[in-house]
Amino acid sequence: MSTLAIDRLTEAIERTGNPTALGLDTRIEYLPPSMLKDLGDIGSLENMEYLANMGNNPENDAVEEALFTFNRGLIDALADLVPCVKVQVAYYEMLGVTGMKLFRKTLLYAKEKGMIVIADVKRNDIGSTAEIYASAYLKGGSFSAGAGFPADFVTINAYFGVDGVAPFLSACEKNGTGIFVLVRTSNPSAGEFQDLIVRDAQGVKGGQGDERPLYEQVGLKVAQWGEALMGRCGYSSVGAVVGATWPEEGKRLRALLPRVFFLVPGYGVQGATARDLVGCFDGQGRGAIVNASRSLICAHKNRKTDDFASAARDEALRMRDDLRRAIAQNTRA
Amino acid sequence: MSTLAIDRLTEAIERTGNPTALGLDTRIEYLPPSMLKDLGDIGSLENMEYLANMGNNPENDAVEEALFTFNRGLIDALADLVPCVKVQVAYYEMLGVTGMKLFRKTLLYAKEKGMIVIADVKRNDIGSTAEIYASAYLKGGSFSAGAGFPADFVTINAYFGVDGVAPFLSACEKNGTGIFVLVRTSNPSAGEFQDLIVRDAQGVKGGQGDERPLYEQVGLKVAQWGEALMGRCGYSSVGAVVGATWPEEGKRLRALLPRVFFLVPGYGVQGATARDLVGCFDGQGRGAIVNASRSLICAHKNRKTDDFASAARDEALRMRDDLRRAIAQNTRA
Repeated sequence: MSTLAIDRLTEAIERTGNPTALGLDTRIEYLPPSMLKDLGDIGSLENMEYLANMGNNPENDAVEEALFTFNRGLIDALADLVPCVKVQVAYYEMLGVTGMKLFRKTLLYAKEKGMIVIADVKRNDIGSTAEIYASAYLKGGSFSAGAGFPADFVTINAYFGVDGVAPFLSACEKNGTGIFVLVRTSNPSAGEFQDLIVRDAQGVKGGQGDERPLYEQVGLKVAQWGEALMGRCGYSSVGAVVGATWPEEGKRLRALLPRVFFLVPGYGVQGATARDLVGCFDGQGRGAIVNASRSLICAHKNRKTDDFASAARDEALRMRDDLRRAIAQNTRA
Repeated sequence: MSTLAIDRLTEAIERTGNPTALGLDTRIEYLPPSMLKDLGDIGSLENMEYLANMGNNPENDAVEEALFTFNRGLIDALADLVPCVKVQVAYYEMLGVTGMKLFRKTLLYAKEKGMIVIADVKRNDIGSTAEIYASAYLKGGSFSAGAGFPADFVTINAYFGVDGVAPFLSACEKNGTGIFVLVRTSNPSAGEFQDLIVRDAQGVKGGQGDERPLYEQVGLKVAQWGEALMGRCGYSSVGAVVGATWPEEGKRLRALLPRVFFLVPGYGVQGATARDLVGCFDGQGRGAIVNASRSLICAHKNRKTDDFASAARDEALRMRDDLRRAIAQNTRA
């Protein structure tokens, strides 16, 4: 029996004392000027559109190498300080086959450095296809010899209902991996569907006439799906994505879903502060991990330095202390 | 100004007289015995798990070649008969970087043979990431020099609301590409969330107290998002995924969304018949395309032949006639 993914994640958070995930939403524009200069013509701003378009062209190797140097530098600088990496696959798919090579290398390197790895892919499909996705990402075990794109956790979208989720649950149970299901997203129009008040003929909770927002109903299902994957830490390997940008919703979900761990995006560039998201943590300051992407990986831009790794480390320390302060105030309150 | 994707799709359907999409959900187990034998040890059943695990291992080249031979053979056999190919990315992601190389090659080859290409990826994210996804898939134009994984259409999931969809709409407008948004999926638990009755404070339609199932509300938004992308054919480049397995829902959606084109999965192995899905077509027998994957690409298995291409062609002809018959009965009725 493998360790449950959620126990590995919470132990890593305890060890570092830092509930932060490093979001590697890496793109060419984020490289510091010196690295772009090293790329010469292919790294110039005029060529970026071209580069993104190259697909699996061999000229892409230099770009792949530069981007991997950037990701590796960030991982090396932060692996002792930040317990977890979240790799957003869109930024890699944009670069075609070259990007997917980089995606895989990045997942494996972060794992090698002892970080918990979240592949942020938001996959979703019918059962037979969900099973294929689960085997692409959630094989766990020896990891490097494992799935096509091995991760400890993936993000998924539950619009298909339980039979699009069950194959992921089976993979998690078998392989000691985990999922985060989209519940309340961080973007401005999150509420367009997620806030709609829902009921079914019997009322969504059993009692006739019960009503709640869609995102709460999805959250309750997430809690139910996670019952068989409950860790020693008191949380389940079936977590929820809850945007930092919605303080009230975060607080309500924390109360409604006491054993569901939250992956919380939206801190930093998306506008949420530590105070906004602190309601996603429980009374012991546990139960959530906060992702930051651009504020960490582009920290060198604000600091006007080419030393992106040190800039990211400074910002990660600032963010850790910011989160700790807010959590301490919250648990005292 | 590029041709609208929906006009290209409907013209291709008219030309072939066949509203069918070839679903290339290709996996090693689907190759005919002779091709597996040619692969020798690496194609044996015992090694399939290993193969799927290999990621970007060089030994994978033989498998990639065999799978591409299979896809190319299907495309060559069907390009004059079937107007459209839908490539389900999960089956390619499962094979890691090798699979993504195969995915790209398959998209480009189908396009080269004049088919309309749907990348079935069901992507979804916040606006800035949706923009990245759109540039990965929907650059249109010269196509082979275009996006990382170029397609005429992608499938998307709208749980994020309009700001996760808008970047796809911009790409469609700029590049003459299109999207299909998940509305009512074909799987058994589709209704778990999609059938929930929704309302907002003002009622979902404006009049206080209006209520409808979530999938209808998503459908109405799809219609609205598509208004700026209306084709000469009377349909929009912003289509909907509507499962063949739900005859009543399909009929209701057809009436509710008269200018939204439907991509209809679920025919064949998933259990839907032509009669089940015929309500997705309009009174002129237009407005929908029906996907079949396993029933076409595995037709050789039922027919006990290694000639997978001829078997797929026979089945495609049978399916075309089956659809034509049902549509003719429906438009007379």
